Amino acid sequence: MRSVNIGICGLGTVGAGVYNVLGRNSKQINSRANCDLVISQVGARRDNPNCDTNGTDVSRDIFDVAKNPDIDIVVELIGGTDVAHKLVMTALENGKHVVTANKALIAQHGMEIFAAAEARGLIVAYEAAVAGGIPIIKALREGLSGNRINWLAGIINGTTNFILSEMDSKGREFADVLTEAQEKGYAEADPTFDVEGIDAAHKLVIMTSLAFGMPLSLDGIYTDGITKLEPQDVSYARELGYAIKHLGITRQTGQGVELRVHPTLVPESCLIAGVNDVSNAVMVNADAVGTTLFYGPGAGSEPTASSVLADIVDVARTMGAGADSWVPALGCNTTALQTQPIMAIQDIETSFYIRFSALDKPGVLSDITGIMANAGISIEAIIQKEQPAGEDYVNVIILTNVTKEKLLDAAVEHIEQLETVRGSVTFIRVEHLDQ
Amino acid sequence: MRSVNIGICGLGTVGAGVYNVLGRNSKQINSRANCDLVISQVGARRDNPNCDTNGTDVSRDIFDVAKNPDIDIVVELIGGTDVAHKLVMTALENGKHVVTANKALIAQHGMEIFAAAEARGLIVAYEAAVAGGIPIIKALREGLSGNRINWLAGIINGTTNFILSEMDSKGREFADVLTEAQEKGYAEADPTFDVEGIDAAHKLVIMTSLAFGMPLSLDGIYTDGITKLEPQDVSYARELGYAIKHLGITRQTGQGVELRVHPTLVPESCLIAGVNDVSNAVMVNADAVGTTLFYGPGAGSEPTASSVLADIVDVARTMGAGADSWVPALGCNTTALQTQPIMAIQDIETSFYIRFSALDKPGVLSDITGIMANAGISIEAIIQKEQPAGEDYVNVIILTNVTKEKLLDAAVEHIEQLETVRGSVTFIRVEHLDQ
Repeated sequence: MRSVNIGICGLGTVGAGVYNVLGRNSKQINSRANCDLVISQVGARRDNPNCDTNGTDVSRDIFDVAKNPDIDIVVELIGGTDVAHKLVMTALENGKHVVTANKALIAQHGMEIFAAAEARGLIVAYEAAVAGGIPIIKALREGLSGNRINWLAGIINGTTNFILSEMDSKGREFADVLTEAQEKGYAEADPTFDVEGIDAAHKLVIMTSLAFGMPLSLDGIYTDGITKLEPQDVSYARELGYAIKHLGITRQTGQGVELRVHPTLVPESCLIAGVNDVSNAVMVNADAVGTTLFYGPGAGSEPTASSVLADIVDVARTMGAGADSWVPALGCNTTALQTQPIMAIQDIETSFYIRFSALDKPGVLSDITGIMANAGISIEAIIQKEQPAGEDYVNVIILTNVTKEKLLDAAVEHIEQLETVRGSVTFIRVEHLDQ
Repeated sequence: MRSVNIGICGLGTVGAGVYNVLGRNSKQINSRANCDLVISQVGARRDNPNCDTNGTDVSRDIFDVAKNPDIDIVVELIGGTDVAHKLVMTALENGKHVVTANKALIAQHGMEIFAAAEARGLIVAYEAAVAGGIPIIKALREGLSGNRINWLAGIINGTTNFILSEMDSKGREFADVLTEAQEKGYAEADPTFDVEGIDAAHKLVIMTSLAFGMPLSLDGIYTDGITKLEPQDVSYARELGYAIKHLGITRQTGQGVELRVHPTLVPESCLIAGVNDVSNAVMVNADAVGTTLFYGPGAGSEPTASSVLADIVDVARTMGAGADSWVPALGCNTTALQTQPIMAIQDIETSFYIRFSALDKPGVLSDITGIMANAGISIEAIIQKEQPAGEDYVNVIILTNVTKEKLLDAAVEHIEQLETVRGSVTFIRVEHLDQ
């Protein structure tokens, strides 16, 4: 059997996972790849105690791997965008196929990287860049290739989902859970990328390109994190039959493409509402198949390695065949990719959960429902929550029907101007994900 | 762009779906397939009012399609095994690649068909044979190719899941729901294949081969249907925090492979417990990725067409490349397939739900718990349900911890011999699907 030589760059959590799983399952993997996969070289600044590389050529310079003439496939697992970008371009210039788990790299530099690969007749594969161990890139690009995709919605960041699950099940505050997540290693020391939705935005942009045949671009994406979410809203949502999940959502509409990451109320009856802890899940709605859901671990050493290895097997099995037989990086020919307008968040239509504090006296609710009616927003439910004794204000929670966000914004502004309303109005988007 | 000519055999529900979706989405699909897909001929005994084949060559003899020298890919959608078997073999003898949605055909004749295809350098693809629109074959064969699979458990028959969902949500009797399902077209006039688990068994055997690298064989599979399931058990299961689902389960153990289809209690916290109506879902547990779940419509015209089209795109894109670059039919080289012993159901270890009717008097429960203890079975929960006034017997429900089924069988026999117990003992297997 022919050999295919792998070079692994980066020996952190994922790199060690790839090294270890390939060693452990080599018999099965080689049979599926129809060749002998050999780790010829590892590039890593330091050793990893979870990975015994004894017997493997280890270089302290990852660029040695990218230039190593013996290597067929370079696996980029160093993360970040600057050095990773240079590494991948160097690997391509040296005629190597590339497998990467790097969502930021693909979201930001994917078009340049794919063009360079195409020009040189090389493959760049990136299954592990989205949703960890879930083979969602393959599902979108190949499994659903007969469809026009209408929308997709995903829990695509394990850290935020862990925090939300804890806030939900235990009524805890965001900051409190974040500290625990950092201690457990679920969240980075600088958690901004995760909790502000930037990581999810990168993944959503990649899935959007695949779903709608668009070039990769972060332009126009709306991103809101979970840092301002309060336990009381998580709790009120439950009373109304909803879970709050941090979703990346993209949708093909007549007016353009919705592209947004934000906390979202989803009905408890919806399967994705039951996806907890560090798990990920992506719902995909398409014209022929209807609604599908793909669930699994969104991060971690071996789950991510699972996706990296699936890519390595695909590349190793097909690299000798003609480029015409390869699945194109974004699912269709580069020439078929078409930019589409991204909708402003104000033009998006959805339902809303809103909460504010209002004086508990006759006529107040009537003022508020009047404002909603004048804005053309119909109300699905309205609830007053009693406050502790001696408190003159009550929490009012409203669920609206589907409306344009700019109408909701105007209504919220009016409500905040009422003398009977204290402080600002909190609102969270609601998605039923049922069609 | 080169053209690839498709011949569709069978213009029933799925055939019409394939014809219509390919027509509607041809631009996207051709871009993904990197060729022009042309339906050159349809073979069907009669027209389908849901499908306007005007302008397409339609033959009343499906074997015309299999022998048509212009056709590259024959799509077998006639169902059944006898004629379908001949049709597929004829297509292969005539040098055609084959796409089929036929689970019975693959489960029963797959080895012969794959060998014939391999000998002639042809592809046989069958994504639509398992779980309708869910790309589970691709997930098992490619998406998880870095893993050793430990077990999988799936709701893989939409008819039984619809019936169970109705029994669960409305307390209805099996026979009553079946009649409705037949009227709605969810169940066949002869529902045996669905409700006795035979259809699920075919699909399970296919997934087992892919998961464990075994030749296809129905030998040794344990199959139990849902016809004897009573609404009271569905209801008691809910009280205990479980849903009853009809699962196909396969598991790699130290003693052989478990291969079984039967009603199963699963905890409500498990995502698969929330899969209702005609939907399907497959959970896969593997060494690197951990647990994943794939959900979607298990049947229907366009969902099934979605999977057939994904296969057509794959075959059309790769047929010109060397056979070495193709994904082998069962995921690994034929020479690497290995038969493994299938475990007898009596040797399988699981938890159990048991119910029986016992005289409501002191000492009875003690006799029963004594029998369980002597059999070495530990009890997780025991509940007595009061009967209507004037009734001397109560329903006793026991949840056991994990035990070998033959021990449970012996205990059940003892319990049935007690004078204080009336009638037979009902038992249902319980799976926690948590590791």
